[in-house]
Amino acid sequence: MAQVKSGFVLWFTGLSGSGKTTLSLEIEKRLKNIGIPYVQRLDGDVVRKELTRDLGFSKADRDENIRRVGFVAKLLSDNGIPTLCAFISPYKDVRNEIRQKCSNFIEIFVYCPLKTLIERDPKGLYKKALDGEIKGFTGIDDPYEPPENPEITIDTSVESVDDEVEKIISYITKKDLLEM
Amino acid sequence: MAQVKSGFVLWFTGLSGSGKTTLSLEIEKRLKNIGIPYVQRLDGDVVRKELTRDLGFSKADRDENIRRVGFVAKLLSDNGIPTLCAFISPYKDVRNEIRQKCSNFIEIFVYCPLKTLIERDPKGLYKKALDGEIKGFTGIDDPYEPPENPEITIDTSVESVDDEVEKIISYITKKDLLEM
Repeated sequence: MAQVKSGFVLWFTGLSGSGKTTLSLEIEKRLKNIGIPYVQRLDGDVVRKELTRDLGFSKADRDENIRRVGFVAKLLSDNGIPTLCAFISPYKDVRNEIRQKCSNFIEIFVYCPLKTLIERDPKGLYKKALDGEIKGFTGIDDPYEPPENPEITIDTSVESVDDEVEKIISYITKKDLLEM
Repeated sequence: MAQVKSGFVLWFTGLSGSGKTTLSLEIEKRLKNIGIPYVQRLDGDVVRKELTRDLGFSKADRDENIRRVGFVAKLLSDNGIPTLCAFISPYKDVRNEIRQKCSNFIEIFVYCPLKTLIERDPKGLYKKALDGEIKGFTGIDDPYEPPENPEITIDTSVESVDDEVEKIISYITKKDLLEM
């Protein structure tokens, strides 16, 4: 049975549709499969309903949203819980602010070329953003600041989900956060 | 070594100065002493800085403050962490809302007669409230709705801290949340 040796935060950042949620769900599944009893996933759907429903999508509000999530992630990981956060989190400074606060912060840049995202576009969001029906859409008319030194970079346009999961599990094992 | 069998929330509610923080600190100390590796305490000082700095002390803001804390407490306790929340939390409805959401919610009414609180008043807050220098002070010119069916009631004007701690630890042990 695998064991968590120290709580950690896996912070998935990247554009809408890049694969953050899919990947975090797979990691959660894997950790549970190897016997980790508690794993907490946080994403926009839950958090914006429960913790940050007062906030919109301006830079200040996006930053405050991420700050609150960061506080919760820190509490969980300080208590030994692997915490998986999947948020576009477009701004570098606030991501780094959270990095400073968390003991084991692992930034995972979930990259996919914009061209591919626009082609896939399963929810039609990029089309709407390009047509101007949605305003302030990250990557189209709102900025995304890629991480400068992420612990892990994943290109979901070329890597398989299995390979991506392997890469992340292998990283946290090598960092001695997880014992297999 | 004692073990947590299931995460739980100890929710300490009561007037300012009634002894919520003291008691939650003692419970934290006790749980750590008997070998529980992780215990999380949440109180106004931390939470209002990190999670709810946008909020004031109106009824709506107090309720939203408690709601966010409740969400965090639920996350922690769902992950097996004993979570100790010390908040005046004057309104019944929002306390009950959190009770519904948390699996093991234990409401602890930390009672002390107002007369005694006004006599003790180590921070001089009651004096200021009575003199009208502080407005909206719970118990003086802002309401406090006592719990109707708290799991545990403590009268800090008559019980010793040791007895109070014993009463709480014995309760969670009997409820099979803690194994000694």
